[in-house]
Amino acid sequence: MNLPSNNRVWIYDTTLRDGSQQEGISLSLEDKLKIAHKLDQLGVPFIEGGWPGANPKDVQFFWQLKEEPLSQAEIVTFCSTRRPHKSAENDPMLQAILAAGTRWVTIFGKSWDLHVKEGLKTTLEENCAMIRDTIALLRSQNRRVIYDAEHWFDGYLNNRDYALKTLETAVEAGAEWLVLCDTNGGTLPHQISSIIQDVVQHFGINPHDDSTPKLGIHTHNDSDTAVASSLVAVEQGATMVQGTMNGYGERCGNANLCSVIPNLQLKLNYHCLESEQLAKLTPTSHLINEIVNFAPNPHAPFVGLSSFAHKGGIHVSAVEKNPLTYEHIDPTVIGNQRRIVISDQAGLSNIVAKARSFGMNLDKSDSICKDILQRTKELENQGYQFEVAEASFELLIYEMLHHRQEFFQLKGFQVNCDMLRGGDSLLSDAVATIKVSVNGEGILEAAEGNGPVSALDAALRKALAKFYPEISDFHLTDYKVRILDSTSGTDATTRVLVESSDGKDRWTTIGVSPNILDASYQAVVEGIEYGLLKQTGEGLFSEKSPTELISPRE
Amino acid sequence: MNLPSNNRVWIYDTTLRDGSQQEGISLSLEDKLKIAHKLDQLGVPFIEGGWPGANPKDVQFFWQLKEEPLSQAEIVTFCSTRRPHKSAENDPMLQAILAAGTRWVTIFGKSWDLHVKEGLKTTLEENCAMIRDTIALLRSQNRRVIYDAEHWFDGYLNNRDYALKTLETAVEAGAEWLVLCDTNGGTLPHQISSIIQDVVQHFGINPHDDSTPKLGIHTHNDSDTAVASSLVAVEQGATMVQGTMNGYGERCGNANLCSVIPNLQLKLNYHCLESEQLAKLTPTSHLINEIVNFAPNPHAPFVGLSSFAHKGGIHVSAVEKNPLTYEHIDPTVIGNQRRIVISDQAGLSNIVAKARSFGMNLDKSDSICKDILQRTKELENQGYQFEVAEASFELLIYEMLHHRQEFFQLKGFQVNCDMLRGGDSLLSDAVATIKVSVNGEGILEAAEGNGPVSALDAALRKALAKFYPEISDFHLTDYKVRILDSTSGTDATTRVLVESSDGKDRWTTIGVSPNILDASYQAVVEGIEYGLLKQTGEGLFSEKSPTELISPRE
Repeated sequence: MNLPSNNRVWIYDTTLRDGSQQEGISLSLEDKLKIAHKLDQLGVPFIEGGWPGANPKDVQFFWQLKEEPLSQAEIVTFCSTRRPHKSAENDPMLQAILAAGTRWVTIFGKSWDLHVKEGLKTTLEENCAMIRDTIALLRSQNRRVIYDAEHWFDGYLNNRDYALKTLETAVEAGAEWLVLCDTNGGTLPHQISSIIQDVVQHFGINPHDDSTPKLGIHTHNDSDTAVASSLVAVEQGATMVQGTMNGYGERCGNANLCSVIPNLQLKLNYHCLESEQLAKLTPTSHLINEIVNFAPNPHAPFVGLSSFAHKGGIHVSAVEKNPLTYEHIDPTVIGNQRRIVISDQAGLSNIVAKARSFGMNLDKSDSICKDILQRTKELENQGYQFEVAEASFELLIYEMLHHRQEFFQLKGFQVNCDMLRGGDSLLSDAVATIKVSVNGEGILEAAEGNGPVSALDAALRKALAKFYPEISDFHLTDYKVRILDSTSGTDATTRVLVESSDGKDRWTTIGVSPNILDASYQAVVEGIEYGLLKQTGEGLFSEKSPTELISPRE
Repeated sequence: MNLPSNNRVWIYDTTLRDGSQQEGISLSLEDKLKIAHKLDQLGVPFIEGGWPGANPKDVQFFWQLKEEPLSQAEIVTFCSTRRPHKSAENDPMLQAILAAGTRWVTIFGKSWDLHVKEGLKTTLEENCAMIRDTIALLRSQNRRVIYDAEHWFDGYLNNRDYALKTLETAVEAGAEWLVLCDTNGGTLPHQISSIIQDVVQHFGINPHDDSTPKLGIHTHNDSDTAVASSLVAVEQGATMVQGTMNGYGERCGNANLCSVIPNLQLKLNYHCLESEQLAKLTPTSHLINEIVNFAPNPHAPFVGLSSFAHKGGIHVSAVEKNPLTYEHIDPTVIGNQRRIVISDQAGLSNIVAKARSFGMNLDKSDSICKDILQRTKELENQGYQFEVAEASFELLIYEMLHHRQEFFQLKGFQVNCDMLRGGDSLLSDAVATIKVSVNGEGILEAAEGNGPVSALDAALRKALAKFYPEISDFHLTDYKVRILDSTSGTDATTRVLVESSDGKDRWTTIGVSPNILDASYQAVVEGIEYGLLKQTGEGLFSEKSPTELISPRE
């Protein structure tokens, strides 16, 4: 896709600066470098790297980037205007900016008279001088300047003329972009729209005429309308959108670029990324979640695991027939995919569709489909939830088809965790001892781990490795426990979800029991079983594969 | 607040029906009843309870509600139109609806010709007959009808005349509300706006004239604009908004009522709830998360724990001076509150503000403030994260002020977990044995639990109960483990967060160590310590309180 440049909207990512303000995010230098390169590969044209003056880590970051430069993105430094009644030349923060040596610099300044008086404790005139001198200094050093007008919409509503005056000052001093920031996130889209109309008129802004200043938008999600506000701003003439990946940011976050980009490009026909880059949107979103160490939000628009998930029988048969009828866009265009979920509203179509998704052709009319549906509902009444444990559901289907292989039998296990205060240090460990039998041969093994479940997992894999060497590649990547309040009035049931990986793929299995170790054991065993089945998958439905029916639950 | 009725917007909650379609949500009958009563107390006028014909659980729900009726909300049943070429009278689903005996019924029907032909496999005329007959039957039984026009916006764009014809049919048959549904969530606010303008004109709709049909809006968040679309719909003349609490729903969720309501009432001056009800919004949102068993999203607009959290020094001093400058609304109006967050960008103002929040008056110029800031940064470099463990931060401040009390000393502990296969059942348990000393007196105790940490917690509380009886009210409510990839290249560090409760309040403490049990121990101990300090809080800064400085970390 290559639309005419007058449809171009420039994406400005501030995940590394504004996004890192989110509670719970603290990025190492390595994290920041990894994220910058991921954004570069995604094709984001502007990446705000940080505020060198305010944060030593950011100074290193910009130096490091010179060693491993980005391929096409402009890396941008961020800084405030000079301090009141001090010179710009001697401002240590601005010196740090110049030292960072980026071509582009974003300067933020105050637009709201209230903030000038109460926050800066200075005059409206001095604030304009601060904007002018700061930008002028950077221009004299051949830097290109993006001006972020902080609190711009609140400032406009409180004192329109002064807010406009700060923008005029920035333009006269040589700023190329005027970015209007809804810093508190309280402005609604219809206000953003009408205010930007006024600005466009005031400056005679024309996106197709480079002699007029260019407009950008920077919104926060406190009113749950940050994405909509970014879209109306573009419709009114803004050609830059500032936001963060996955909507990270202080309080309720910034405008989510994972939603802004596909809306602009797929629905409003603006050009943000090349189509092969757009297809990296979902994987990039998930990768950045990994780096930040957040579990991706499955319900995130566009990039969520559930964004194109379908549930409920009729619905699923319809979407299979004609995706258009239930999907607002083709998920593959942004690197996402359709998912059929199994749930207690599961219909036969779901079972058939799900089976097809792992290469099994069932027919709705087969009695086995009704049996699988029946069994699914029974187990879900006990607290199993296959929509979040698809590997266990796959095993269930194999089981019902008498194609589930028994790899081993458990004889028993024991886990010990000791902690003794020796002087001031604590020595401790979790050790699991397990006995299993494979084809009648008994094996006893022990292993240690962080906590009983990882120790159990390690011991089990150790015991089985002799027979199934591929197991050595498997490991636990996540472990979740949840207490289900039982409606039957009997003891509470524990549901354990285990995520396993073989280094390439990840799969989730489930265990349910009043006893947490029993539930964990079920989930761990199914995780290993599924991994082994994956390896030997092709043979699964051949005559060679064992047909003995087993279930660790029974 | 009591605005004229012409400003009234009717909130229609479908958490119990559309919301429960979200992956991971499965509501028991008790859950549904609890939620219905919470919504009733919040003042939501319409509560969609479920689809009795499709789900036996929902039949029970409506019967049960007759035993424990709602105080003011209308409970609504939901059902599709009759099947093609069958009579409405003999439709088992519609019979179930009539049996449920609610005054209001919501009927959904097809607006999109594509869905009629491909989904229903019938003619456009028959689809209209299905809408007509179904609504007519309900009207003949004195039911009041809300008509949900499924896929309305897609239908309109594909075949405007037919989409309008389905609405005309519903009105002629006696529907009081026409609710336009963006079922796939793909329609953007500006499209919603212009399409609704056309509908308003076509039907001569006038919110102030009861002889004209009333309009409602039902959006999904697939484009991340569901809230904005609901707002523009109201601005164009819709007087009902359908949505869910916390935006639950299939795929990316429904319009989030926790955002829609405050936007309409506080920013656009519509009347949805009485102001004393609006103040229940945040607690109700959190309570429903508890019932559904989801951790509340701290970044949720309006109701999130972080929605009014402030970070960064300058910022905090400013918000203290004049909240308006950094908060788009007064959080208390919706039952939320301002929070000062401690982070590695913590400035002295944060320390002072935080200390004030638990009744300590420090002065920026006190050297102790600099010491606390210094210590905070050191610990945060080690992986402590006080912004998510405020109780530990409070303890840290007490410690720095030499006001931290030593309640006991640990001598050591051991945890064992056994599992033996006896026949087909698994017997297992985690048992902790601990030795502590209080005022020189040694105590040895053992206790069991689900897993080593709960066993350790139980044993510790058992050992201390003799000296601190209030401990018997404490319990662990959450336990989170996270591996921090160490930038120092040494072994990975484990961060443990423990949430404790005394039945009234909850507080979170943190432990960091290469050893997970050591980290868990730190967090558990601080959880108990903080609980004890809370009880004896008033004496904390009196001369009576011990001044010995201890730290379990050293």
